Formats: sequence, C-alpha cells, structure tokens
Amino acid sequence: MPLVGIVMGSDSDLPIMKSAAEILEKFGVEYEMTVISAHRSPKRAIEYASTAVERGLEVIIAAAGGAAHLPGVLAALTPLPVVGVPIKANTLDGIDSLYSIVQMPSGIPVATVSINGAKNAGILAAQILSVVDPGLRHKITDYKKDLAKEVNDKGTLLEEIGYKAYLAQKEHK
Amino acid sequence: MPLVGIVMGSDSDLPIMKSAAEILEKFGVEYEMTVISAHRSPKRAIEYASTAVERGLEVIIAAAGGAAHLPGVLAALTPLPVVGVPIKANTLDGIDSLYSIVQMPSGIPVATVSINGAKNAGILAAQILSVVDPGLRHKITDYKKDLAKEVNDKGTLLEEIGYKAYLAQKEHK
Amino acid sequence: MPLVGIVMGSDSDLPIMKSAAEILEKFGVEYEMTVISAHRSPKRAIEYASTAVERGLEVIIAAAGGAAHLPGVLAALTPLPVVGVPIKANTLDGIDSLYSIVQMPSGIPVATVSINGAKNAGILAAQILSVVDPGLRHKITDYKKDLAKEVNDKGTLLEEIGYKAYLAQKEHK
Amino acid sequence: MPLVGIVMGSDSDLPIMKSAAEILEKFGVEYEMTVISAHRSPKRAIEYASTAVERGLEVIIAAAGGAAHLPGVLAALTPLPVVGVPIKANTLDGIDSLYSIVQMPSGIPVATVSINGAKNAGILAAQILSVVDPGLRHKITDYKKDLAKEVNDKGTLLEEIGYKAYLAQKEHK
Amino acid sequence: MPLVGIVMGSDSDLPIMKSAAEILEKFGVEYEMTVISAHRSPKRAIEYASTAVERGLEVIIAAAGGAAHLPGVLAALTPLPVVGVPIKANTLDGIDSLYSIVQMPSGIPVATVSINGAKNAGILAAQILSVVDPGLRHKITDYKKDLAKEVNDKGTLLEEIGYKAYLAQKEHK
Amino acid sequence: MPLVGIVMGSDSDLPIMKSAAEILEKFGVEYEMTVISAHRSPKRAIEYASTAVERGLEVIIAAAGGAAHLPGVLAALTPLPVVGVPIKANTLDGIDSLYSIVQMPSGIPVATVSINGAKNAGILAAQILSVVDPGLRHKITDYKKDLAKEVNDKGTLLEEIGYKAYLAQKEHK
Amino acid sequence: MPLVGIVMGSDSDLPIMKSAAEILEKFGVEYEMTVISAHRSPKRAIEYASTAVERGLEVIIAAAGGAAHLPGVLAALTPLPVVGVPIKANTLDGIDSLYSIVQMPSGIPVATVSINGAKNAGILAAQILSVVDPGLRHKITDYKKDLAKEVNDKGTLLEEIGYKAYLAQKEHK
Amino acid sequence: MPLVGIVMGSDSDLPIMKSAAEILEKFGVEYEMTVISAHRSPKRAIEYASTAVERGLEVIIAAAGGAAHLPGVLAALTPLPVVGVPIKANTLDGIDSLYSIVQMPSGIPVATVSINGAKNAGILAAQILSVVDPGLRHKITDYKKDLAKEVNDKGTLLEEIGYKAYLAQKEHK
Repeated sequence: MPLVGIVMGSDSDLPIMKSAAEILEKFGVEYEMTVISAHRSPKRAIEYASTAVERGLEVIIAAAGGAAHLPGVLAALTPLPVVGVPIKANTLDGIDSLYSIVQMPSGIPVATVSINGAKNAGILAAQILSVVDPGLRHKITDYKKDLAKEVNDKGTLLEEIGYKAYLAQKEHK
Repeated sequence: MPLVGIVMGSDSDLPIMKSAAEILEKFGVEYEMTVISAHRSPKRAIEYASTAVERGLEVIIAAAGGAAHLPGVLAALTPLPVVGVPIKANTLDGIDSLYSIVQMPSGIPVATVSINGAKNAGILAAQILSVVDPGLRHKITDYKKDLAKEVNDKGTLLEEIGYKAYLAQKEHK
Repeated sequence: MPLVGIVMGSDSDLPIMKSAAEILEKFGVEYEMTVISAHRSPKRAIEYASTAVERGLEVIIAAAGGAAHLPGVLAALTPLPVVGVPIKANTLDGIDSLYSIVQMPSGIPVATVSINGAKNAGILAAQILSVVDPGLRHKITDYKKDLAKEVNDKGTLLEEIGYKAYLAQKEHK
Repeated sequence: MPLVGIVMGSDSDLPIMKSAAEILEKFGVEYEMTVISAHRSPKRAIEYASTAVERGLEVIIAAAGGAAHLPGVLAALTPLPVVGVPIKANTLDGIDSLYSIVQMPSGIPVATVSINGAKNAGILAAQILSVVDPGLRHKITDYKKDLAKEVNDKGTLLEEIGYKAYLAQKEHK
Repeated sequence: MPLVGIVMGSDSDLPIMKSAAEILEKFGVEYEMTVISAHRSPKRAIEYASTAVERGLEVIIAAAGGAAHLPGVLAALTPLPVVGVPIKANTLDGIDSLYSIVQMPSGIPVATVSINGAKNAGILAAQILSVVDPGLRHKITDYKKDLAKEVNDKGTLLEEIGYKAYLAQKEHK
Repeated sequence: MPLVGIVMGSDSDLPIMKSAAEILEKFGVEYEMTVISAHRSPKRAIEYASTAVERGLEVIIAAAGGAAHLPGVLAALTPLPVVGVPIKANTLDGIDSLYSIVQMPSGIPVATVSINGAKNAGILAAQILSVVDPGLRHKITDYKKDLAKEVNDKGTLLEEIGYKAYLAQKEHK
Repeated sequence: MPLVGIVMGSDSDLPIMKSAAEILEKFGVEYEMTVISAHRSPKRAIEYASTAVERGLEVIIAAAGGAAHLPGVLAALTPLPVVGVPIKANTLDGIDSLYSIVQMPSGIPVATVSINGAKNAGILAAQILSVVDPGLRHKITDYKKDLAKEVNDKGTLLEEIGYKAYLAQKEHK
Repeated sequence: MPLVGIVMGSDSDLPIMKSAAEILEKFGVEYEMTVISAHRSPKRAIEYASTAVERGLEVIIAAAGGAAHLPGVLAALTPLPVVGVPIKANTLDGIDSLYSIVQMPSGIPVATVSINGAKNAGILAAQILSVVDPGLRHKITDYKKDLAKEVNDKGTLLEEIGYKAYLAQKEHK
C-alpha cells in the first residue's frame, strides 16, 4: 500500500517529477503517482485530499507551476503533511510558483522545496516517514554518506589532476 | 437578489474590500459579501462556487493575500467570471498575492485588478454586468466623466493658484 | 457583428494572440482583430476606444509588451470591460508588461490575465458575454468539463502504466 | 523528552518564533528551544545537528534571516527532517531569507514555510510527528475544523450585519 | 511664455513634483504646471500633448505612479522630448511606475529619471534647454560646482572633527 | 562637427548600439562613436566628459551593462544632457544595468531609456537637438507619422485577411 | 598613518557607516573617514583614489546608495582592494545599491558586503590587513570567539528560563 | 605553498571557476583548488576552514549556487578573508546565490563579487595579498593599465573605421 502520493498539476511536470519517484524507489518507499489539476479538475483534487488518510497515505507530494494552487488546496483538505514542489513555468522563472506555494496562510502549511526540486521532495517525504521507520532513517543516513563520498572523490580528483585535466576528462564523458 | 458576490479570505481584508461594496452601492448593483478561506474553510469555498450560478450571481469578486488561492479555487468551480483582488500582506509587498492570482493556468482565467484594488474590482464587476444592462453602462460612462471633471478641476486650480498655494490649501483640509 | 475586439500593440504579438481568436471561434463568439499601438498610432487607439460602444463591441481584449499602455489607454476611453494580456518582451520576462497593465489607478480597471495568457483572455471575454447569453454559459460549463476529463484521463493513464511508460509514450508522439 | 528542537539564529527572532512553541504546546508536543547561529556559533550548530538523533529529536525547526544558512547547515548534518522559517530582516522584505532556505541543492532538502511562518512550522512539525501518533493526527484534524468554524462564523456574521457594522464592531475590540 | 510643462497624474504627486518647479525657478526657466491623468482625463492628456508645440513648450516633464502611462501617452502625441518621473505609489516600491515609464517601445522614448526624482527631472529639462541657451549652460555648470563644494565642505568637516562630533552636530540642527 | 557622442562600455555592446547611430544618420544628425569603460579606462572617461562641451558635443549617449556606471560618471563631469542605455548582460536580465543608470542621486540626472533601447536613445538625442533645430523637429514629426502609418497598415491588413493568412504571410518572408 | 579609508557618498550615510569606524577602533586599526560623491564631487573622488597608495592606505571602504557608483569609481582608479557597502535609500530597499556595487565588470572587483553592512565592511578590512599583521588576526579570532560566546550565552539562557521569561526579560531592558 | 584556496560547491561550477585559477596564475600567486559542498560534504567543509590558517592559506575563494552557503560556512570557521562567488544556477538567474552569499549577518562578512564573477574573485584575492607583497601590487597596477589600453585600442579603432567596418571585422574573427 503506497505511503506517499505524488501528484502534479499537469503531465508536462512529469519529466521533473519522476525524480521524486526514483528516489522513493531507491529508498524502498511505496508511492502512487497521478495528475490532478486544482483548477481544471478541482473535484478530483478535493476527492484525492479528502480520502488520502483512509487510503493509507502518510505524505503527499504536490507539484505545480504558475499560480500553483495544488499543494495548498490539498493541504486544506487533509491533515497529512504536504510537500510542495514549485515548477518553473514559461515565464517568471518559477518565482510565481514558489510564492504561490510557500506563502501559505497561518494554519495550513506546505513544506516547500526548491524550484523544480522533485528529488528533494522525495527525500523529504522519506525523512518524514523515517519518524516511524528506523530502517528508513538508516538508509537516509547512508544516502548522505554517499553524497559526501561523491563530493569528496571529485574534490580529491580535482586536487590531484588540476582543473585543466579535470575539465578535459569531463568533456570526454 | 444579489448579482455580485464579494468574498475575501480573511476579515482583515475588509477595510480594503469595503471599497468594492461602496462602489457597487453607488452604481445601484446588488451584492452579497462574506468571508471564505480557500485554505481554512475549503468546503465553504467549494459550496459557494458550486452554487453561485443557481443562486443568481453573475460575477464573483474574490480577494486574498499571500499564497492567494481563493479567486482561482472559486474560478475552478464556477463558469462565472471571477475578479481577483491581490491583497498586500505582511511581507513581499503584495507580489506573492498578485502572482498567485494572475498567473492562472490555461483554461481558468481570473480577471485580476491591482494590488488592493478593491474599488476597481467593483467597477469591473459593474462593467461586466453592463453587458446586459444599458442603464448601468450609462452610469459607468457618467462616472468616468465625473472622474475626468475632478482631475480637470484640480488641474485648473493648480494652474491658477500655483503649487505653493495649492499645497498650502491641501494641508489646511 | 463582432462582440469582442482583439487588439495588440504589434503584429509580433500575433503568434500569442491568435489563441484568443481560436477559443472565441470555438465558443461561437464573433470577434474582430487588429493591430493598434498606444504609442506609435495613438490616434487610431483613441478612435478605436471612442467608437467601440457604437460599433457594438461588448468586450475589448488588448495585448501589449514592455511599457504596455494599450489596455489602459483603451480602458480610459470606453465604458466597456477591457481584458489585458501582458506580453513577454525581450527583457524582464513579462514583469514590466504585467505591472504596466495590472497596476491601473483607481477608477479605470483592466481585467488582467496571466503573462502571454491570450487563451484565458478569450475565455474571460466569453464568461463576460455569458452574463447575457445562457447558451454561452452552457458552452463554458461544458468546456470546463472537457478540461477536467482531459486531466482525469491523463491521471488515470499515469496511474495505470506508470511514469516510465507514460514518458516513453509522450516522447513517441 | 523533547521531540522537536526549535532553534533560531538570533534571539531577535524570538518574538516571531514563540508562535512555533505555542502551537506545539497546544498540540501537546514536547519541544526544546535555543539560539544557535550558523555563522557566529558554528561549532554549536555542528554539535546540535550531529547529536539530534541520539538526543531523541524527530524534527528540527530552524529560523534565520538574511543569508539564512542555519536550516541548511543543520540539515546537512542530520538525517532528521528540518523545517525552515525565513525571518524577515531589515532589508529585502524576507526574500533573501526565503531564497537562502528554500533553494537547497539536490540531496539536502529543507521543508520551507512562509516568511515569518513560525506557527505553520509548528503545525508542520506536528503533522510530521502524526505519522507515528494517531492521537496527534486527530488533534490536527480538530484544529483544522476549528479554523474552518472560526472563518465560517466570521463569514456568517458579516453576511448578517453587513460590512459597516462589522468594521465598527472590530474597531471597538 | 513657459518652455517646460510639468504635468502629474494626480495632485497627490505634488509634494514630490514641486521640486521640479523649484529647481526650474532657480535656473530661471519658465514653466507651467498642471494635473492630467492619462486614465481619468484622457481627453485633456491628448489635447495637452497635441498642442504643446504650438503653445511654445520645448520640454514636458510628466510624473505618474503605478501603471504610469502619462509620460508615454504624452510622448506618443508630441515630437517634444518627454522626461518621465516614476512616482512611488502604495505598493511595489515604485518598480511598477519605473517599468511602466522606462520600458517604452522602439520609436517613442521617454527620458526616465529615478523614482521620485522630480528635482533631477527639472535639471534634465534645463540641460535640454541649454542646447539653445548658453547662459543656462553656465548656470548648470555653476550648479554642479556648488554641489561639489557642498560635498567637499561636508567631507572636510568630517575629516576635521570626526564622526562623533559630526553626528552630534547634525542632531542639533 | 559631431553634436552627439555615442559611447559604450564595451565593444560587445556595439551590435545593440549601432541602432543609435543608424537612427541619427536617418535624421541627418552628426555623431561620433567610441568605446570607453568607466572602470577599465577611467581616465579616458574623465577626459571624454571634461572636454565634451569644448569639442562641440550637445548630447552624450552612454551605454553600459551590469554595474553600469558609465552614463553616471560622464554626467558627473559635463553639463550636457546624458542619455543612458542599460545593456542586458549575462545575468539579471538588464535589471542591474537599469538600476545602476536610472537611480542617480539628486543633482546629476541621466535620461534613461529602455533596456537595450539604443534606437530610442538616438531618437531622444534628436528630440533634444530639435530644441534648437526646427528642421529636425519636422523630421521627428514625420518619423512619428511613418510609425503610425506602418502600424495602421499592419492593422488594416490583419483586419482584411485574418490572422491565419497574416501569420502564413509573415512566415513566408 | 591610516591604513583604511572610509568614504561615503553622502553624510546621510554616516549613521550607518560609523559602525565601520567603531569596529576598526575596536581592532586598533587606524582609519580616515570622509564624504565624497562620485557624481557630485567627481574630481575629489578621482583624486582620492589616485593618491590612495602613496598616502599609505591599504584598503578602501566605500558606501553609497541608489545608483551607487562610488565603490566602483574608486576601484577603477586604485590597485587597492575596495570594500563596497550598499546603502538602503528611499526606494527599492537597497537592491539598486547592491546591484550597482556588486555587478562590477570583469577586471575591476569590489568586495561587496550586505546592504547597510558597515560593521562587516570594517571586519573585512581588518581581515584583509591581517594578511600582514598576525596580531590583528589574533584579534579577529578572539572577536569570533566572543561572538560565539554571546550567542551561546543567549542560547543557554533561553534553554534555562524558557521563551516567556526570556521575552519578559528582554522587554525590561 | 598555496596562499589562496579556491573551493566550489560542485564540479559543475568548474567551467566558471577556472577563471579564478587562470588569473592567479597570471599574477604568479600559488593556489589550491577543490570541491567541497557545505550541504553534501559538511565535515570536509568544517575541516577545510578550520585548518586553513595552519596550512598557510591567506585568502579563500568560495563559489556556490542556489542556497549558496559554502562561503558563509567557511567564513564562520576561519579568521581569513573569504571571497564569495555567486554561481548562476538553473533558476532565479543567480539572485538566490547572490542573496545567500552577500546578506551575511553582522560579524561574519563575505567579500562578494558579481554573479559568476570568478575572474574578479581571483583579482580581489591578489589585491588582498598585495597588502603584504609590493611586487604583486605592481602587477595589479600593470594589469589595470593593460585593461585600459585594450579598451582604448578598441575605442580608437571604432573611431577610425566606424561601426560598420568594426562589426564586419569582429564577425570575421
């Protein structure tokens, strides 16, 4: 049974939002994924949020662009934590999406991540679930170690071979 | 029977939004006025929009600040034209409200007026209703003439007495 | 006889603004379309707005970029509702256009839609005309149902086949 | 034993951040509260984050203004979910704080709430903890009902007595 | 006969715009001053600009706030150079006014000065007139010398008495 | 003898700034053109501005990007009117250039045109010179008539053949 | 002999800039302080920068608001490191000052600190001088320890007495 | 032994940051270069900053994008001057990076250069080191002369051959 629901306002958000799914798969967290528009399919949005608890979801990840109401609309209708992903649309470089998601009124928070930050939304969902799942917390700790190792390896390589060789090597790949 | 519904996300918006009511009164347009939060009272928002047509409303004016979802949420659930008023909240000078209201996705427009532009929202509602009411259009035309006269009178006075006397006179009032 | 006048400040706006015409055609609303610059052809702008009522127009849609004065200049000279479309120009990502259109002074509103939101301008014009035309309102209601169905179908497909297959399918098209 | 750690970059943030403590008290969630600067007391920041899990914390709420690094610095050093509160400082209206907190790189999310959104940070922490605590979820559901009732009561009152009486009544209080 | 016309969109701009008049008086340049709104009194705007040349004006200074169309509307209807003063209105800190004035389309420039920069508008008008008036150019050169002297005197005083005494002295005044 | 000096901070601005030269050629105004950096060649900037009057210049057009100091630095050292052109650089979309040029302190104005508005800078320089040259003013008046005719022709064509044929025709060219 | 020159564009910047002087006094670094405007007293600016090295200065701190050219103008004329302090002026919240100072072109850097960050400018100047002065580096290290201690003491107090008592205590002071 | 440490938050910053290395090579300043993420490899960041003095570094150049904490985190842990380079990331055009680096709190400055201003960061580091190295100061003075010469040569060429030939010549290269 999925614990995380990933919803997005348009299927054009999917190339961004798949990263949320991928990282949840990596952490072994079950999720479901669908398209719901707060504006074009409002009834589906209402139903999705209203039934989220009974369907066993623990966290909702919602992504939208422009006047990005989806995360807030879902948060209004469920007690679950809602993670919001501002999607960069054609104009305004994602600022409209960010403001529409993060500036929620007192009483109804949305846990906002960076513009197009789908992967981080997935990690945050896992961190939330790790409150009840020590195994998951271990995985997150290990994941952070891997991140550090990856950066350290790059740093060590750059120190050893210098920036010219490093850039040449990168270009080759 | 009211033709215009004025709704606002919080009663703290009322000192701004009363201007919408006042101008509608001036034009002799019946209206109703209430407080509905898209986030804190979402069911009331859904019900309000879903029943707007059958209750005889022709235009909805919706005001909200911050992540201002109310106009968009109502627009999603009614075929009526929705006029949106971005309210300047404590931070970001109303830009968050403006973006959250004006940047609606394709398919669901909100007729956005200026930040805190409640009076203009009322005038716009009257202009919309004047499509079916020639008397109302006359009133709008007359109103615009009054605006012009007022500016012209000020201009003439300034030309006649000069800026020093004009400013002194203004201070006195 | 056209009920909606679509005007734009430059013929370079036409690739955007044709969407307003297309959606009005879809709704069966008669319109006229022309190019008028508030700055380069001001007399034509004045004449257009001043004669709009007598020519039978009920709504004007005006689009412009940069210091986008056209919607406001027209609104100053007609009692009709004016819908403003901020066009994204070469710099500033459409913010200059948006501010120049939406921040109108008290007394003269412009019903502003999103940056490049020509389609929504057409829908809004139809919503305004539906105040006097119940058949048009039905069409708008149906249009919104179609929007919902389209989103729901996409959502259902994504749920059924998963994001990998969905993205693969999209790429194929 | 506290489950939530509330930390802020300066004691000048306390008048804002006390709202996070108050709402956690209301929900019966134990918390601890302290001042740590990522820049002025970096060792304390490192120690705090590094020992958070072993000390039994499940969520960290971190607030900072300007180049607001505290939430990100803590998030870098703990697997726990970190909720970030951008504090509006003397210039830039909180935008610098917001960007510094929300735009975290891939791998290390911060769950960002609105500028000065301390209360929402507390609610979000409670929502996160409710994953493991059904009683807490009930409290959140009840809290949302209270929010709705409060708005509905205001709406009903405004409908009944009109905006003039309503504003007069508010002024009296 | 006045050579400079100072116009403003609202008499609320007068406390700012009087500085333009004062500096023109200082330079001995004749001016006229009035209130014209591009939106509320458009016909007066059209007439003012259309007759400016025949009335002997050589430069127009136009000030407006918000969707500040006045300078552009006048520039559209006269070959004279138009100096635009963006007025800071209630929201957006003058950015809307600045963008609405400075971002004019190709063909119709407005010589924009700083937000609320009425004094500089007056100086710029004098600089323009000095093209035909060597005596005026001398005055401008002298004015710049006075500016330099004033700054130098302050600098010298600060160097001599130090910042503590300087601040104490300033407070006394 | 050139009456207008066109200077730019970098020769990378030349593809933009050539439009200023072209329009001056069209108006038959003599100009000179060079590259001067306020920061990289400050002495040349000082000398250029200090000798501008004696060399017979009447207007300076100065263009720069980023922290665009050139127009202001020249304006500080000459009594001549200086027209500033903000050049869009690699980041910030020209806003840094615009603010650096338009927000001059009291006493030293720069007549700012739109971002990348080189052509308008040339027109503005001609308008300034027309104060002393009635023939030039006639040319400007004629130029504006041509602009209007061009827009009107496009408008008439669009009205006649409709947007589909119009767009098809444009594509062909 | 002063090693640091503190210059500001206007004596209205002095209430901010005195913090730079105070922290240099605390570190025992000799400084001089004066008022120079890049625009109003450009010759003094040129002379100041051109003679800075021979007068024994090692670092220049320059503050300005609006189109803040002073730091860049000085940096253009001296090989010394220049620290720039953007001053928040009447409009635009200091963003214009920040952009005008930080966005310097390739070749001529200005070491920019935060808006109104005079104290940090002083600390940065001391850090620069500490390259040649180990005693000064020790003082900076000690200063940072004091900062940490101050924050830690506040944190400990808040932990001990709780936010209510802490806020009550602060109010008393 | 390297005197300057160049660190960047990601190896994707290297194509920008190599310019800092190149200019230091040109000035004959020894440097080291590595990758360290404040968020993904925080321990390495802590260690790097904590040991910087003892390893003989005199200046640190730190580059990062988005919520760019690296310069501030390093500055918190070393008494050395830290030069910050805001890197333009995928969204927000580098504004998030700039604010995250420049808006440091009182006590812990970062010497911020322009967005992507790696070369200027290198020059600034050299200017800082020149406090203790007169030979280096001579090189900087010469470098500035070369910059001036380069601009002057371009200016002279443009004056001689005109913009058409100049542009044609540039295109050829």
